[in-house]
Amino acid sequence: MGKCINHPDRETSFMCMKHNLYLCEECLKCRDPKIHCKFRPSCPIWFMEKRGGKGIDDVPAVEKKIEYKILFMPENKEVSAVEGSTLLDAAMAGDIPLNASCNGKGSCGKCKLVLESGTGKFDDTPLLSQEEKTNNYVLACQTTVYSDITVRIPEETLEKKLQIAGMGKEVTARMQGLVQEISPMLQNIPLELQPPTLDDSISDLDRLMLGFVKSGCDTGRISVGLKVMRELAAAMRGENWKVTASVIKKSCSSEIVRVVPGNGDLSSLGVAIDIGTTSIVVYLVEMADGVIIAATSGHNRQAVCGDDVINRIVCAEKDGVKKLSSMGLATINGLINEAIDSAEVERVRIDNVVLSGNTTMIHLLLQIEPRHIRREPYIPSVSAFPILKAGHIGLKVNPMAAVFVMPGPAGYVGGDIVSGLIYTGFHREEAVTLFIDVGTNGEIVLGNKEWLMTASCSAGPAFEGGGIRWGMRAEEGAIEKITIDQKHFVPTFSVVGDVPPRGICGSGMIDLISEMLLTGMIRPNGKFNIDDTHPRITKDGDETAYILAFADETSVDKDILFMESDIDNIIRSKGAVYAGFKVLLNQAGFDFSMVDRMIITGGFGQYLDLEKAVTIGLLPDIDRAKFQYLGNSSIAGAYMTLLSEKYRKEAIEISNRMTYVDFSSNNQFMDEFTSALFLPHTNLEEFPSVKHMV
Amino acid sequence: MGKCINHPDRETSFMCMKHNLYLCEECLKCRDPKIHCKFRPSCPIWFMEKRGGKGIDDVPAVEKKIEYKILFMPENKEVSAVEGSTLLDAAMAGDIPLNASCNGKGSCGKCKLVLESGTGKFDDTPLLSQEEKTNNYVLACQTTVYSDITVRIPEETLEKKLQIAGMGKEVTARMQGLVQEISPMLQNIPLELQPPTLDDSISDLDRLMLGFVKSGCDTGRISVGLKVMRELAAAMRGENWKVTASVIKKSCSSEIVRVVPGNGDLSSLGVAIDIGTTSIVVYLVEMADGVIIAATSGHNRQAVCGDDVINRIVCAEKDGVKKLSSMGLATINGLINEAIDSAEVERVRIDNVVLSGNTTMIHLLLQIEPRHIRREPYIPSVSAFPILKAGHIGLKVNPMAAVFVMPGPAGYVGGDIVSGLIYTGFHREEAVTLFIDVGTNGEIVLGNKEWLMTASCSAGPAFEGGGIRWGMRAEEGAIEKITIDQKHFVPTFSVVGDVPPRGICGSGMIDLISEMLLTGMIRPNGKFNIDDTHPRITKDGDETAYILAFADETSVDKDILFMESDIDNIIRSKGAVYAGFKVLLNQAGFDFSMVDRMIITGGFGQYLDLEKAVTIGLLPDIDRAKFQYLGNSSIAGAYMTLLSEKYRKEAIEISNRMTYVDFSSNNQFMDEFTSALFLPHTNLEEFPSVKHMV
Repeated sequence: MGKCINHPDRETSFMCMKHNLYLCEECLKCRDPKIHCKFRPSCPIWFMEKRGGKGIDDVPAVEKKIEYKILFMPENKEVSAVEGSTLLDAAMAGDIPLNASCNGKGSCGKCKLVLESGTGKFDDTPLLSQEEKTNNYVLACQTTVYSDITVRIPEETLEKKLQIAGMGKEVTARMQGLVQEISPMLQNIPLELQPPTLDDSISDLDRLMLGFVKSGCDTGRISVGLKVMRELAAAMRGENWKVTASVIKKSCSSEIVRVVPGNGDLSSLGVAIDIGTTSIVVYLVEMADGVIIAATSGHNRQAVCGDDVINRIVCAEKDGVKKLSSMGLATINGLINEAIDSAEVERVRIDNVVLSGNTTMIHLLLQIEPRHIRREPYIPSVSAFPILKAGHIGLKVNPMAAVFVMPGPAGYVGGDIVSGLIYTGFHREEAVTLFIDVGTNGEIVLGNKEWLMTASCSAGPAFEGGGIRWGMRAEEGAIEKITIDQKHFVPTFSVVGDVPPRGICGSGMIDLISEMLLTGMIRPNGKFNIDDTHPRITKDGDETAYILAFADETSVDKDILFMESDIDNIIRSKGAVYAGFKVLLNQAGFDFSMVDRMIITGGFGQYLDLEKAVTIGLLPDIDRAKFQYLGNSSIAGAYMTLLSEKYRKEAIEISNRMTYVDFSSNNQFMDEFTSALFLPHTNLEEFPSVKHMV
Repeated sequence: MGKCINHPDRETSFMCMKHNLYLCEECLKCRDPKIHCKFRPSCPIWFMEKRGGKGIDDVPAVEKKIEYKILFMPENKEVSAVEGSTLLDAAMAGDIPLNASCNGKGSCGKCKLVLESGTGKFDDTPLLSQEEKTNNYVLACQTTVYSDITVRIPEETLEKKLQIAGMGKEVTARMQGLVQEISPMLQNIPLELQPPTLDDSISDLDRLMLGFVKSGCDTGRISVGLKVMRELAAAMRGENWKVTASVIKKSCSSEIVRVVPGNGDLSSLGVAIDIGTTSIVVYLVEMADGVIIAATSGHNRQAVCGDDVINRIVCAEKDGVKKLSSMGLATINGLINEAIDSAEVERVRIDNVVLSGNTTMIHLLLQIEPRHIRREPYIPSVSAFPILKAGHIGLKVNPMAAVFVMPGPAGYVGGDIVSGLIYTGFHREEAVTLFIDVGTNGEIVLGNKEWLMTASCSAGPAFEGGGIRWGMRAEEGAIEKITIDQKHFVPTFSVVGDVPPRGICGSGMIDLISEMLLTGMIRPNGKFNIDDTHPRITKDGDETAYILAFADETSVDKDILFMESDIDNIIRSKGAVYAGFKVLLNQAGFDFSMVDRMIITGGFGQYLDLEKAVTIGLLPDIDRAKFQYLGNSSIAGAYMTLLSEKYRKEAIEISNRMTYVDFSSNNQFMDEFTSALFLPHTNLEEFPSVKHMV
């Protein structure tokens, strides 16, 4: 506990991990950053942690305690848990995917479970309704175990199939034309060698090298490891001195990683992997022709440690980076298995891999220390990697497979953004492009073939459902498109998977706020402007909320609400992105009119309505023909990089070329952020097309 | 069983593994190769295996059987053994060092044990005397287990401390002057880095690389592995951005293998290791000044699988190469431990290693397939190695230590010979040198700075004690110098360690045969020329023997005999070496008179009498001033290579320069060998100085 920096009379348990300053709850929620929360919006890590109570750093080491059995229904999975640990701990230990956005801090209210038998000790929480409490709902992270327990995972807590932009047959079919010349990292080279005689008795390895020389290779720079040396004698004699050698081309030299008998099937497979903080996507690709033979996606299992990279790093500091790595690997390997099964291919044929992810995801996966990414001056350990071997990092493909890791220029601008550039290609063009990828952070790139500037702003996880009462990812049951009737404020919406809704995803929220603004339901400051007695309006405690769907329309048998604080969160997120645009343009001596193209990517859902994104002030009010929404560009760039040496070189070059601008100590960013905390903006002149509508 | 190729009426169980031909026991022992054993002396693997009976390839897979406990005294070590396995198997399983020269074939009679309780089933053997049988002596390899058993290892079966030429303070002190400029493979480079700021937020790894650039390194070719990346963040912040980076310089690039905080003690240690088939030598060296701070040596524990490389390969084929590797590593790591303890240094400081050994020893240690070395056309898997890491091959030093493996030009001329050249340096000189290293094989090198020819002849293990009834290595208790009084044929001898004798080593055998020849006790054909009734003469079965020491003079309480068949074996060995000299000289268009220097190395013992070696015809009868006996040159060359980049490059160059001549299909070798099967030679004119004495 400490004293709020704005209200020294108030004790508070929330602290910004960056600035080591305490903020009371009012300050945390308040909207005027100049007066109260001056550090919050510019702090790129934007990380408030509850201290003193169940704060992460204050959890004492668990003593040897009694173990209880926790049964999770409907999965019927039993997990052991020591006395005093939480149900969330048990779920994590048992690898049961729960939605736990805030990493167990008790602030998101997403990890709801229904207690069916047994007793736990639970703190009272305002995040559960009275009805839920009556029906034995508990928060997994706030319930400590004191007996054997049976819990049921309710519909709203279960994770469903993700809707990933960039999947689907037509998308992958379109991608297949992107790469003209295919040049894998690992190549299988057939060799026919002369059998040895008494007069020609050089060693097997020398004979192999001679074979390479005869096939035109420069052997001066070819290296061979012990593993290959150990298998060499048998491989060379296995099919009468015909062998196939697998060679990985590296920057300074090549390495022979495998020698097998015979000159049989030389075709190999590759996987392109996009490791998102939220979701992971895998493409399985025929290396010979670039055909995508399977595409799978799933939730990153690390999500149980929190929604954003900061929580993941905190988790890694507490439990060790290996744990986070295993969770990520488990997800990836599961998706690779799905892809292998669906395409009916042999795992061992996969010998080329590309990993694309933000800097933290890559650090965690490779078990590289991430803790300094979240501390000023936000330094990653490694930004560019040599070609790695799949077996060394735990990928379940051919252990000798060559792994290219997309390089990332900074702690908060990673390889996924470089992938995005590879795919969109604007760094090769004259036209000036403004690129934004919205996720937990909004990464912005501005530039063209001559220059590239990049920055990251704390958009927060709102567009991915984080911090929004009924917010969720673009999964089955998410409301993704909304219109509101002007007269009765009755919404019409479409839901991912055409099922009854159970929440709202990013594109749905943008639609909703835009519609609420244009119908006059809310004022430009985000406050409701509607009679409390209206049937669509309700109160939750002191807070006003709009009823987006009544309980009987939903799959969760509860009203799906959109709270005033949810609007507030979205305004903060869009304000951070818009401020980011302006400051980066300003640093380059540009304004919006000088931008030739604007590319938007990220996890909003498949159907982002760009017009409505302008209406709320997320995107600038410029010629709509300049906009392009490209969904997941990280996987697309990874796919291209998998196939082509040209793009692997380009990735390194892009990462080196980008100039990173830090916003965390930038006063202009603070001003722009404050001005952007209105719908669409404090200065309506910046949004002429919206101005005449509101 | 099969028919003898010379006597089709005889069934025999001995077979040459190379030629797949059976030879009866008479042919095996006979002296005229043209008539009987035409394949034996030229066959470089010279490997007779007992087939049909307990032959190696015919042992059926062991079924699940009852286990018994075998207690070995005086070590008081208990080992489990399944019913039907041999006491030698049990000793191997329990890592109890027994002398087992023939690898369990029952032909050497060295693995004697005394049965104290329990019962085994043992084949009757002529290799044990009646007295021994009465006293419950058995051969470990011929005794199968059918109950719990207690055995005592008698004095003569125990392995004692080796006498290694090249050890001792004065030898190591002399070596320390050999290397002028020290350039280790792994270097510790101190760096002082600029701490990062918001304006200078490159990754830790990029910052490290910048540090290298500032210190004048070319970073374009520096690679870094995952392990270093994982430790980097903590190391760089540990002592305020001062670090020490350890870099291994490789042929095409360098690799950073370790980064530790601070610029503290940069001094490191190295070990030079000579891996002999019989014995292993370790030098522990201060890399800064080349001072040898400890030198240790011991028996290669692989000896339990047989005396020579062929038996070791057979063992690897049967039990897997990993087992042989573990045995070698156990020996090496034990010796490293001894050296560390004696010098009182930290293991982690050892970060440079050189391994020098024959081709088979290196293959076995690194777990590389050795089986083709013993099969025509005798091909090793690998002859030259990249720099390896100690941790990867199981050496218990700093796991990141750089390991240089001496390259070897052929299956039967290995890195130990290249080491020998590095030490003697004749490949840098104008003078033509004939170099011989006598062990199980005699490796010969002829040449100077312009050309180098090399060959291997099957000397056999006789000079190391193998195949000689009371033969032993140059250990404590070995008779190493002998003179015989002309009148009464009474020997005067000196013994290693000044203790009562328990056998005879190589230098002793050369002295003995020379003396017996000069005193007229034996004829030039090696047969005794002395009255059977002489008190020094006895019979063992049909065979005549000379009593070198009476039972009461010895530590084994038995007469130490030198058999007619022992003389025969030595004549074969020296004949193969001498024939090798002549053929190699002939191939080069040379004769002995054109040789400027003759260097002899190998495991004879510390005091090889060169004059007597000429007398028996092992060395040519040339100017004695040209002779030089240098003991263990492999360890000396390894030491030099450890310290200097110059010698590491030279080693690779020497190995590539050597032209290997194969004797196995060489008719001239056969003729020369036959002519050399007399003392000193069939053609006495070749030995003028000996001629006038006999």
